[in-house]
Amino acid sequence: MIPFFEYNWQVRDEWFAWCSRLPEEELVGPRTGGVGSILKTLFHIIDVEYSWIRGIQGKEDIVFGYADYDTLEKVRSLSDRCRGEVTEFLKGYGEGRNEKVVRVPWDEEEYTVDEVMHHLIAHEIHHIGQLSVWARELDLTPVAAHYVGRSLKTLFSN
Amino acid sequence: MIPFFEYNWQVRDEWFAWCSRLPEEELVGPRTGGVGSILKTLFHIIDVEYSWIRGIQGKEDIVFGYADYDTLEKVRSLSDRCRGEVTEFLKGYGEGRNEKVVRVPWDEEEYTVDEVMHHLIAHEIHHIGQLSVWARELDLTPVAAHYVGRSLKTLFSN
Repeated sequence: MIPFFEYNWQVRDEWFAWCSRLPEEELVGPRTGGVGSILKTLFHIIDVEYSWIRGIQGKEDIVFGYADYDTLEKVRSLSDRCRGEVTEFLKGYGEGRNEKVVRVPWDEEEYTVDEVMHHLIAHEIHHIGQLSVWARELDLTPVAAHYVGRSLKTLFSN
Repeated sequence: MIPFFEYNWQVRDEWFAWCSRLPEEELVGPRTGGVGSILKTLFHIIDVEYSWIRGIQGKEDIVFGYADYDTLEKVRSLSDRCRGEVTEFLKGYGEGRNEKVVRVPWDEEEYTVDEVMHHLIAHEIHHIGQLSVWARELDLTPVAAHYVGRSLKTLFSN
């Protein structure tokens, strides 16, 4: 599980850098598919990850409103802030499957922690795939998505 | 690792079913981003997965040409065929990390088997994200991408 978070966060940071070279109007402008804009996609990925990670720990859901995070810097800063707490959780996660069953306030079903972790990983990669199409539609080269051939920074090095 | 393959293959099959309701010209028509068409994307996912899975086993690369798989039925049949061999490999994979270092003919770098497995999983999810944008551009509802809330069929049930 952990290497996928390392991958997702490295790719996410590369998208933040990519976005910083984009005019504001392209960042927030409406796009077809996904959650509808580049910035909203990044916000949504962070929001979903953070909510589920808190949810599986039985912590109260903290709801972020996109209206409060409508610039690249605000979203990037939200990402950094949430990442600290998610990293703390991941430190205790271990290698094996966690079959503990959890419930979260926004979903009627029960899932195992392991299922939620898979969900979060797939969720981010899926939305990043959407960004890559929008980038090409802007005639820009998207951030590379390959997993092999990138040096992943270990989450727990410090 | 295995649950991600179960997820990817279930989603892939749902895309095959989705594609079967699409006119041929939309399936093969040019799209912006990714590998350039819906059908080529599905072909590419299968081709990449199969090549790497053979590669990490030290088996000779079998190169498929898209020209030979230019219909939905041919691509779906290729998917089924390759899946059998990939499943056999996955049966022996186990739960832990496989740090064995491998080389493949199409890449100068060395990777661990574990890295390649991560690569394949992320690769398919990323490309499926691209399909979801193209679906919306066609005014169609894409296949759902969520991991939680779907009953995954166990790969090794038979």
